[in-house]
Amino acid sequence: MLVLKNIAQVVTLGVGPVPRCGTEMEELGIIPDGAVLIRGQRIAWVGPSSDLPLHQYGSNAGTIDGTGLELVALPGFVDSHTHPIFAGSRVDEYEMRCRGKSYQEISAAGGGIRASVRQLRQTSFGQLVRHGEKVFRQFLRHGTTTIEAKSGYGLSMEDELKILRVIERLRSRSRLEVVPTFLGAHAVPDEFRDSRHVYVEKLVKEMIPRVAREGLARFCDVFCDTGYFTVEEARTILTAARDHGLGLRIHAEELRHGGGARLAAEFGARSADHLEWVDDGDIAALRRAGTVATLLPGTAFNLGLTRYPPARALIEARVPVALATDFNPGSCFTPNLQLILSIACSQMSMTPAEAVTAATINGAYSLGLAERLGSIERGKQADIVLMSIPDYREIPYRLGVNHCVVAIKRGRVVLNLLERP
Amino acid sequence: MLVLKNIAQVVTLGVGPVPRCGTEMEELGIIPDGAVLIRGQRIAWVGPSSDLPLHQYGSNAGTIDGTGLELVALPGFVDSHTHPIFAGSRVDEYEMRCRGKSYQEISAAGGGIRASVRQLRQTSFGQLVRHGEKVFRQFLRHGTTTIEAKSGYGLSMEDELKILRVIERLRSRSRLEVVPTFLGAHAVPDEFRDSRHVYVEKLVKEMIPRVAREGLARFCDVFCDTGYFTVEEARTILTAARDHGLGLRIHAEELRHGGGARLAAEFGARSADHLEWVDDGDIAALRRAGTVATLLPGTAFNLGLTRYPPARALIEARVPVALATDFNPGSCFTPNLQLILSIACSQMSMTPAEAVTAATINGAYSLGLAERLGSIERGKQADIVLMSIPDYREIPYRLGVNHCVVAIKRGRVVLNLLERP
Repeated sequence: MLVLKNIAQVVTLGVGPVPRCGTEMEELGIIPDGAVLIRGQRIAWVGPSSDLPLHQYGSNAGTIDGTGLELVALPGFVDSHTHPIFAGSRVDEYEMRCRGKSYQEISAAGGGIRASVRQLRQTSFGQLVRHGEKVFRQFLRHGTTTIEAKSGYGLSMEDELKILRVIERLRSRSRLEVVPTFLGAHAVPDEFRDSRHVYVEKLVKEMIPRVAREGLARFCDVFCDTGYFTVEEARTILTAARDHGLGLRIHAEELRHGGGARLAAEFGARSADHLEWVDDGDIAALRRAGTVATLLPGTAFNLGLTRYPPARALIEARVPVALATDFNPGSCFTPNLQLILSIACSQMSMTPAEAVTAATINGAYSLGLAERLGSIERGKQADIVLMSIPDYREIPYRLGVNHCVVAIKRGRVVLNLLERP
Repeated sequence: MLVLKNIAQVVTLGVGPVPRCGTEMEELGIIPDGAVLIRGQRIAWVGPSSDLPLHQYGSNAGTIDGTGLELVALPGFVDSHTHPIFAGSRVDEYEMRCRGKSYQEISAAGGGIRASVRQLRQTSFGQLVRHGEKVFRQFLRHGTTTIEAKSGYGLSMEDELKILRVIERLRSRSRLEVVPTFLGAHAVPDEFRDSRHVYVEKLVKEMIPRVAREGLARFCDVFCDTGYFTVEEARTILTAARDHGLGLRIHAEELRHGGGARLAAEFGARSADHLEWVDDGDIAALRRAGTVATLLPGTAFNLGLTRYPPARALIEARVPVALATDFNPGSCFTPNLQLILSIACSQMSMTPAEAVTAATINGAYSLGLAERLGSIERGKQADIVLMSIPDYREIPYRLGVNHCVVAIKRGRVVLNLLERP
């Protein structure tokens, strides 16, 4: 038994429709001076501290008392788009971008995803696990208790399986919850640049069936954009993935308008990600399909682009919006969703409430986990983080500071900076 | 005696002209696998770890050994533009901006600086000191060992003196080094809105002389911009400040082009700050005057503006460029210069090396402290921070993560996260 009490705000996100669309994204269900009772892995009770039913639960429970501390409790962040398993650094490319090269120019010159592929193929399983452990700790440290984790820096049967097995190994060791996604269609590997149809066939006939058979991924994703996979290739890949029982996600409309969003809607994909270039017709199609728009504004920011996804238009059209980091070594090397909230508010005019909804319940929904995660409600898994601030809106407002001081995953305290002297 | 050794990179910024201009801003004087010897408050020796002259200094020195840790040593950041003493939060205004109101609209409606003035006037000296202590710890926690601290939320003799005395009290208590600046000309206070000349006269005849006489500030600053002080008013104020022996700084060309930069050049001000709207003529004038361009890109970012200061044009014209946070509760609530480096690189195309120079030696120069601070060289004050990364360029590259694990101020370890189990 664990009790949280005298918490300035408990942001429950409770008792609303799932996913949250339109104005529902601002309904946070905040309990001032709130309390939460946790039994085992589950939330047993949520309410005002003055109503704490301690007589029901006894007084020998572990307690985190926020008196005098100005703490806000939130559902642990769900980061629904990350690329956490890679080797080496691409800081040279970062510096080239500062000197005026574009992401596409660097990619065309052999950098970008292909540089990470070369590095990853030379890196052992054990090295990847050790690096991944550090990365996973960084997510937890910043208040994220669940991530979606994509493969995609292997681009061969052997190396993609290696990544997915690293993810599986890390899942079994880490306190962080992980949803694996197969992204063999992250780029056409160098060895198939003159025979890309052969790689697509490998994906469809060999890799997707094997990944599905071994249960190594819950979703399949495709980078459908100029310079990566065409709409037709993506359709072929998604069809195979669907036929093998994988959920669908798409990298769409990031670099230019190309049809990825419509394809996501056509397949009823769970999520269409990036979406800088969507138009009104795309937005209507996503709305009809019920596809989540997963926005990754840290990437546009970090690449120095001025075009961000049209968050306001998506919200007004009642497309469910999620926010994620896009954590990766090329275009956005941050595990910190708090910073993504700041970027979403200042660059996409999302409100702090919408941003919190997008990074919790809607992110969970995009992973098919909203029944269990993404809100602080009786019966749900006890994934809760405490931020050292008096008001949830201060997460984006006080930017560039990690406010997370406690993380609770499955009812267990996995980070506690309050205990320090 | 304190020894730092086996540090992956010691970024010395040594043996170059002060301030650094043009291509000099990229010369970091990096020593790979470096070491630093500190005796008392000073740096006694810097060089490769293999050359450590331990026979000279004995082996009973305290040691921080970076073997296996991937640490980078830098001069402690010098944050040369902050507003750290205020009361209360302006998170309501933050949310209004997310909903589409501009900073100027909020200011015209009684928000902005005037809101902070109302709050500060109702807050006691003791409360301000307690709040300030938390803020100062946040600067140190993120690798900043020296700040410039402006008054400017009092706007009356009594309340401006209160702020400057809070700063003086904090200076005597905190490990953070603080350079106080009088900013009575931050805005025209409400009670003088119909008689602004009376407030300017008070500044010139009463407040500046008193502040100078009591030694409460080293610099005087003026917010010279549309809606704040005109060029003529600023000239009157700066003349008085100069006559009373204060150094000069100006908030210039932030909201629109108005003449503040030329005024800074005319007075040979030590720093002209913001500069979003400078033109080529302004840049040439700053260059001739030797005035530092202190850029605050976190503010443009946080306000959701698309216009940033022209960092590249300033550097190419050999104006010395500094970077600072503008830490304040209205337009940029971050104490984290590491994030400002990320913003400078991605939004203003500064290179990581230029950004590090701007946040260390050039910031120190803008405060008249480059003889003592801003580089890791024999004889200088031992203000050094250690970042947990293998390469200095990863500070901006791995954005949104606080990499600082050790801070040393005046030869004393004031933060050490390496010691934790």
